[in-house]
Amino acid sequence: MLSLTCISPLFYSSIAIGFLLMDPNRSQSEFSQANGEFSMIRRTAIFAGMAAGLICLTGVCGWMWAEEPSNAKSEGTIVIDRLAVPLSNLLSPEARAYMVHLLVDRPFDGGPSAEQNIQGYRARQDEIMRSFLGPIESRYPVRIEERTFGGVFTQIVTPTGGIAAKNRDRVLLNVHGGGFVSGARTASLIESIPIASIEKIKVISIDYRMGPESKFPAASEDVAAVYREVLKDYSPQHIGLYGCSAGGMLTGMSIAWFEKHNLPNPAAIGILCASLGHMFAGDSAHVAGPLMGMQVPPAPHPGVTAPSIEFPAYLGDADPNDPLVYPINSSDLIAKFPPALFITSTRGFEFSSAVDSCNALNHAGAVAELHVWDGLPHAFWYNSDLPESREAYEVIAKFFDRYLHL
Amino acid sequence: MLSLTCISPLFYSSIAIGFLLMDPNRSQSEFSQANGEFSMIRRTAIFAGMAAGLICLTGVCGWMWAEEPSNAKSEGTIVIDRLAVPLSNLLSPEARAYMVHLLVDRPFDGGPSAEQNIQGYRARQDEIMRSFLGPIESRYPVRIEERTFGGVFTQIVTPTGGIAAKNRDRVLLNVHGGGFVSGARTASLIESIPIASIEKIKVISIDYRMGPESKFPAASEDVAAVYREVLKDYSPQHIGLYGCSAGGMLTGMSIAWFEKHNLPNPAAIGILCASLGHMFAGDSAHVAGPLMGMQVPPAPHPGVTAPSIEFPAYLGDADPNDPLVYPINSSDLIAKFPPALFITSTRGFEFSSAVDSCNALNHAGAVAELHVWDGLPHAFWYNSDLPESREAYEVIAKFFDRYLHL
Repeated sequence: MLSLTCISPLFYSSIAIGFLLMDPNRSQSEFSQANGEFSMIRRTAIFAGMAAGLICLTGVCGWMWAEEPSNAKSEGTIVIDRLAVPLSNLLSPEARAYMVHLLVDRPFDGGPSAEQNIQGYRARQDEIMRSFLGPIESRYPVRIEERTFGGVFTQIVTPTGGIAAKNRDRVLLNVHGGGFVSGARTASLIESIPIASIEKIKVISIDYRMGPESKFPAASEDVAAVYREVLKDYSPQHIGLYGCSAGGMLTGMSIAWFEKHNLPNPAAIGILCASLGHMFAGDSAHVAGPLMGMQVPPAPHPGVTAPSIEFPAYLGDADPNDPLVYPINSSDLIAKFPPALFITSTRGFEFSSAVDSCNALNHAGAVAELHVWDGLPHAFWYNSDLPESREAYEVIAKFFDRYLHL
Repeated sequence: MLSLTCISPLFYSSIAIGFLLMDPNRSQSEFSQANGEFSMIRRTAIFAGMAAGLICLTGVCGWMWAEEPSNAKSEGTIVIDRLAVPLSNLLSPEARAYMVHLLVDRPFDGGPSAEQNIQGYRARQDEIMRSFLGPIESRYPVRIEERTFGGVFTQIVTPTGGIAAKNRDRVLLNVHGGGFVSGARTASLIESIPIASIEKIKVISIDYRMGPESKFPAASEDVAAVYREVLKDYSPQHIGLYGCSAGGMLTGMSIAWFEKHNLPNPAAIGILCASLGHMFAGDSAHVAGPLMGMQVPPAPHPGVTAPSIEFPAYLGDADPNDPLVYPINSSDLIAKFPPALFITSTRGFEFSSAVDSCNALNHAGAVAELHVWDGLPHAFWYNSDLPESREAYEVIAKFFDRYLHL
């Protein structure tokens, strides 16, 4: 690409010089008149033109070279140019159609940023979430109650067909996604309803405090407040905790918070489309955004270009070295983690961080299980129309069924 | 990039027209003389020049658009341009140094292709393999015996420190990588020695027939021949089978072959840097090569540009719909698979196919476990200098210890 763009100035410079040489006046006004003074002016103009062309050429090429990362090769940085990546041939037909919709129609682009107008941003995000929630409510009949635990609002989701006998003493806690700024009472239901229905279990989704109004550790405190109340009715071996995106992060942060505040571990956790460290890390922080047709850093929701305010609005003042923020900072801490499920996808920005956190848990002696779907974006499983999402629901349900005690 | 290159013709066209308008003859020969005929010629020339410029512009832009994949947007194909991807920040210092070595020094490039000169190719590949084998032999002291089982040559690797008590009745079978054309007695030891030493177990590595001299199903037959002999001394619940790259494929193909020939399943299998389907699939078939500084299709060994002959030399005549070739073709078959371990990495070409096979096994009701390392190439674990590789050895050893019966 670089070579082509360097050639085109040469090409157009030669056209410029060609126009001069083809001047229709030349033969009559210059050569036939043999006017030395005019000829000199003309030659000076030609040389000036060529010099100007060379200067332009040098400038444009120089500017373009400056755009290449410096010392790219010696640092191991790879520059990828004009790489055509088709949709993954491993996608279901439904997932192919959804990906084309996301990449071509860009249905979730636009709307106010959380930084500019948090209420408008939340309204727009909730509208997007409701587009996922509709099909989920049709597929998975549940009953939803509202209840306050320890001063924190929650939604309690139970399957209309009833709770399975083996799950009477078991419960799952959910903490929703939405970049710590949105998703309350919408993403919460997207994440809770399919699992409650498939596993035939009660799911309590926690409406924790978010940014920009609240800051870390407000959400961890709210999860702990609900957990303390739930522990009055359920043994920790019968409790699971999970969430997606910011909720996946908050799941890990909550385990760290419980450890610090002498609360027992739940039996198992689900860190879905998230990690125990900084979410933008490794190869996926650079590759996943472009694979979704975006610039980095990419999206907190499927196909949405991320306002940079989202995670920082809640976490901006927190110490990134604090294991209560990023538990991966402490291998002693994560060694004590309960069995953890990771779900991620190759076009999700969190993907590299997720596989790294899974490795870190296993290396520390904990149990961690990884499931990856190819060619799909962050939080793909919010879309229940995809067979891949429904496979993920089964994986989540089986995981908790395996690790929650009977 | 496209916009920049489209702008530059405009820029240079305007220079061309500018030269015409700045013609030093104009004021004297044209306007001051008020020569209607010359003025008309000049105007015609200007318009002709502008038309020529527009035609060139259209042609260059049209040619460039033609270079873009046709219907890129409507098909969901993404074109990535000028994307700088640094080394993964999740790599160990040793892995960073290794990646810079691979990407900058390209130590494994060159040498004859398997198609041109199979003996020269194997000699070169063995040389590369010995560069990995040296550090492994230093780190992991083992004893190596040679033995023929059912007419097939094998190397039996036992730890110098002795076999662990719990492993006296257990054995692992290994089938080496090398694209079904190379790796015999070199890659075999790279894959066997660390596992034998860490797990304190006997590993028998099988020197199966390869292409281009032999064709599918020669290798499956050889694995079955050894397996039948080993079953005389070991119960199938005490046997594990694993391999890397082509050997990972052959592991799955062997389970399909055993099923067809009424041989019992071993207790567990390791499909390492490989899959149960076509290895070049999904996002990684397009992204992993460029991330290793190569064109697709990429390499069968870390950092090596693949001669296209490698897999086809052995598999070229086989039916790609045959579950004996690609077990993923039959969900009934893979439902009967023993517990399977997948190890892969985000810059390995097989990565998408591996995660897809792992999902397919879990979805079919089998047990499959996935471990992914970020920012590393195909078969990274051949390099024992990397802490990531030594983590992978631990994962492999623990997996077989968990699933082989006592």
